[in-house]
This record gives sequence, C-alpha cells and structure tokens, in this order.
Amino acid sequence: MPNPYIKSPQCTTMKERELITEIVKLLNIANEDAFVFSFNNTLFSLTVDTLVAKTDVPEGMTNFQIGWKTAVMNLSDLAAMGSTPQYFLCSLTLPQEYPALEIIKGVQSACKTCQCTFSGGDLNEGALSASGFALGTSKTVMLRSGAKPGDRVGITGDVGRVYAGLKDLTTATQSMKEKIFSPQPCIKKGVVLNAHSCIDISDGLSSELHHIAEASSVQIDIHADKIPIHPDVKKKAQSVGEDPVTWALKSGEEYELVFTDRYIDPVKGIDIGEVRKGKGVLLDGNVMPWLGWEHYTQ
Amino acid sequence: MPNPYIKSPQCTTMKERELITEIVKLLNIANEDAFVFSFNNTLFSLTVDTLVAKTDVPEGMTNFQIGWKTAVMNLSDLAAMGSTPQYFLCSLTLPQEYPALEIIKGVQSACKTCQCTFSGGDLNEGALSASGFALGTSKTVMLRSGAKPGDRVGITGDVGRVYAGLKDLTTATQSMKEKIFSPQPCIKKGVVLNAHSCIDISDGLSSELHHIAEASSVQIDIHADKIPIHPDVKKKAQSVGEDPVTWALKSGEEYELVFTDRYIDPVKGIDIGEVRKGKGVLLDGNVMPWLGWEHYTQ
Repeated sequence: MPNPYIKSPQCTTMKERELITEIVKLLNIANEDAFVFSFNNTLFSLTVDTLVAKTDVPEGMTNFQIGWKTAVMNLSDLAAMGSTPQYFLCSLTLPQEYPALEIIKGVQSACKTCQCTFSGGDLNEGALSASGFALGTSKTVMLRSGAKPGDRVGITGDVGRVYAGLKDLTTATQSMKEKIFSPQPCIKKGVVLNAHSCIDISDGLSSELHHIAEASSVQIDIHADKIPIHPDVKKKAQSVGEDPVTWALKSGEEYELVFTDRYIDPVKGIDIGEVRKGKGVLLDGNVMPWLGWEHYTQ
Repeated sequence: MPNPYIKSPQCTTMKERELITEIVKLLNIANEDAFVFSFNNTLFSLTVDTLVAKTDVPEGMTNFQIGWKTAVMNLSDLAAMGSTPQYFLCSLTLPQEYPALEIIKGVQSACKTCQCTFSGGDLNEGALSASGFALGTSKTVMLRSGAKPGDRVGITGDVGRVYAGLKDLTTATQSMKEKIFSPQPCIKKGVVLNAHSCIDISDGLSSELHHIAEASSVQIDIHADKIPIHPDVKKKAQSVGEDPVTWALKSGEEYELVFTDRYIDPVKGIDIGEVRKGKGVLLDGNVMPWLGWEHYTQ
C-alpha cells in the first residue's frame, strides 16, 4: 500500500549532507564508513549500503554485475577502515519473475574474490534494490577523523573513469567500462595501509576530501597535476572541451581509497597533496568546491 | 536507470520458497532466522530484513511506526534465535523531501526499548524501503532444525489480530491496531526460552510450523482449540462467516515465537500441540495447508 505520509507537511527540505548531520546528532554517532565496536581485543566493523536501480545501475549492467557491485559497495567501506571482510548478508527486493539467482551469483563471486563468507539474506517484492551488510574484523581501524597537519594525502589509484564512461556510455572505452561494471574494492591495500585517516571514494574524490577535512578539523591542499587520471579520461574530457581534473574530482563509485599519513609509500599510493592546520579543501591553493554525488540534489 | 534484464529470458518462474531453496543450495547455508558464527566462545547472530512500502506498510502507518517496525522485524529474528540484540543498522531508501528523521526516531525508539544500540546506516533515493541489520550475541542459539519427536509445541502469545485488522482496517479494533502498528518483538522471552527449536511468526503460524517440520524432519500436530485467538478476532471472523482458526494460521507479522521443547512451561508459552516422527504439519490430525504470506504469489 502506498505510504500516506509522502510529501506530508512534516517533510524536511534538507539535502542529504544536512540530513546526515541531523541524524548523526540525533543518534550521537560518528559519521564514518562503518560502525566499530570492540570485543575481546578485536575491532568489529559493521556497514550497510543499498544499491538502488534508479541511481546505481547503469544501462547495460547485467544482474551478475548488480550483485557484484552490491557486495563491492559494502566491502569497500570495510577496506577504508582497514578491516578484513568476514561475513556478508544481502536483502534483495525484486519484481516478480526476476532472475534473482544471477544477482546472488554476482554477490557470491565478489565475496569469494574478497575471501568473505556470503552468509545469506532475505527476499522482498518491489522495485529492484539490494541492501548489503558486511562485517569485518581488525586490530586497529582508520577513521575519517584521523588526519593531522603535516600529513601527506595519498590515493590508491586513478579516478575519473566512471564519470567519463557514464557521461556517454556509447563512447566509453574498455578501461571505463571495467571500472563501471566490475569495480574492485581495495581490500588488500586497506588492510596494510595503517594510515592516519582513510575513506573510500564512493561519492567522488572532492566529496571524500571534504569529509576528511571536516571530520579531522584540518585543511587539505591538493595538487591538480598529481591526481592520477587515465589517458582515456583526459582524451574524452578534452574532446568535449571539459576539464579532466573536474571529472576526476566528481567521479563517484570509484572505490579507490584516499588517505593521509606522515609519508605516502609509493607502493601503497600516489601522493597528491598535503594536510595543514585550517579548514576546507583547496586545489592548488584555491577553494575546491564540494563536487560529486549527493542524493536529493540531482 | 531501469534495469534492462527485468523479465529477460533467464527469468525464474519459481515462487519464493522454491527460490530460497535454490539459494540455500547454491550458497550451502542453513535456512534459519539468522546467520550464526562463533568468536571466543560467543555466538554472534546476524540478520537482515527489509520493509517495503508496498507490502509492509499498511494505510495509516506513521513514519515513526515505519521505523519502529523496521527494527522489530529484525530484532524478532534475533529473539527467535535466543540471541540478545546488541547493534542495529538501517539503510533507508526514500523519495525526495521525505521526513526521514521521523523514521529514524521510530527505529531509535524500538532499539532503545530492546536495549540495542542504533549504530547508524545509510541513505538512498528511491521508493520508500528500509533495510535493517541486527547483530546479537548469546551462548547458545535455537534453530528451526532442533525439533525432536516427543516435543510439545509452544507459542508465546495470541495470533490472528494482524490478519483480522488488515482484512478491513475501518473495522479494526484497538487490540488489532496495536499489533499492526506497534508490534513488540519477544526479546526477553526468546533469551530465556532455551527450547529445542524456535522461529518467529513473520509469515504466519502455519508457514512457520511447516518451516520447523521441514528443517527438523519431523511431523507437527496442532490442536485447533489450543491456538490462542483474541476474542476480537473470533468475533470479526464469525461476523463475516469465516473461520478464526484459519485467520490465526495465516496471520503474518505477529512477531510471537513458536517453539518446541520437552515441556512447555506455562510461564513461557501456551501448549498448542506435539511433535512426532514423520513429515508435514497436521491440524487435529488432518493435513494443514501451507497458509500465510509468501512473496511472488499474492
């Protein structure tokens, strides 16, 4: 039955970030990639994330890939905490006659790749969506709030291919399609990172940098020419007269990690900037706008 | 974007139960109310369940009640395992401008009532649905598969008020509305039950009895006159010339526990029948059909 309270007078008009701030305040929780609790000297990280057909399933994505992505979205949050994935559950909402097993096989494959046990879930009837839940364990965790002035800023890989591909899927290169349809979470990189702060790039590099700066009460300055951008992205941006750096900053669902630490080991990541005392995020010394995906604003 | 694979040739035509059997086989997992793993002599139970507006939100349900029910659906699964709820996360999918905080407050209130920590979640844009995830701990767990011949069958409370109320909400009594809009999970009862087998009534008493019989490879015989049915349900069923026992058997989202044990302590539940060697579920010696809610069949 339809919910009679949709668009009722109690409606909020806040955007997602403002809403999250309200929720975090109401629940008195930290705004991190996962909730963490300690049990017998082990830290358990818990995270939930939902794939919604309308916003998260590009045209041409197979059901196997939908399942794969649902798992990756969640496992990537654990990677950002430096937590080793242990168990994954999935709540599927599907229309009648939907090939559910194909999605399940995609989830299973992603879990297997990440050495995580796919432990079941439940089924519901409705428009396609898939809610994942992941539990990971570790001895320590990395938080958004751990960046310190003097830190360098690192990133585990290139960014921009997702935005560039989705901009026009008919002209997407193989390198873009790989990143859109078969994203890889940085599990192994996250586990050994042991950085001062970390976050995964789900909403866009710019957005994630702002999250770290805000949570850590620091200023971050990024060097545009250091951001790793795939040649295909540069070429496509230039061909339509747009700036590849802007594309790289706003490209979501990249699932690379951005982190800060005293020193960026080149084996672990690429140095793209520095952390200072202050506020906000700069790009070559100028204010970087908050680019990237935000629900309720598109 | 719409998913291009909806109703593709790979579609299954199986009903929910058959689909679940396939998934359980594919993943090699047990079909229980929660997934259980052991860590340092403690059993951790994990469960996910999604509230979907179309199937789970009756007309007139407030957003606070939607949040409350989302938590209860999951906490009830832990109750069925005899597991003490510890942490709850919620992934909300909402249309633009939706009063999200009202739902959050409902979740928070249910968690507080059950002494469970509401630990956060995430937000998505789309048709209203709310996926809950709950983690509980215990020293032992009760399973669907533990029923033994010679056991008695117990139930923690009356059944039928939800079905009777939803049959026609305009004539629903206060006792029916309470059960529909503010269901209570049997957390405390579950924790001390320590029965041979247990399941919570989410899809209907008949359906849950079949689950126990199937998982335990036993036969269950229920005495119709022992099933606790509220006078309001009897009255309403009789007023429309229907059988209150059938209503009680098919009434879903009751969140009472049905369990089997050597003896039913009257403090813990009402004795409604017995477990024997054999197969299937009987009602006063005759085959009881599989009544109750099943997705993809309504």
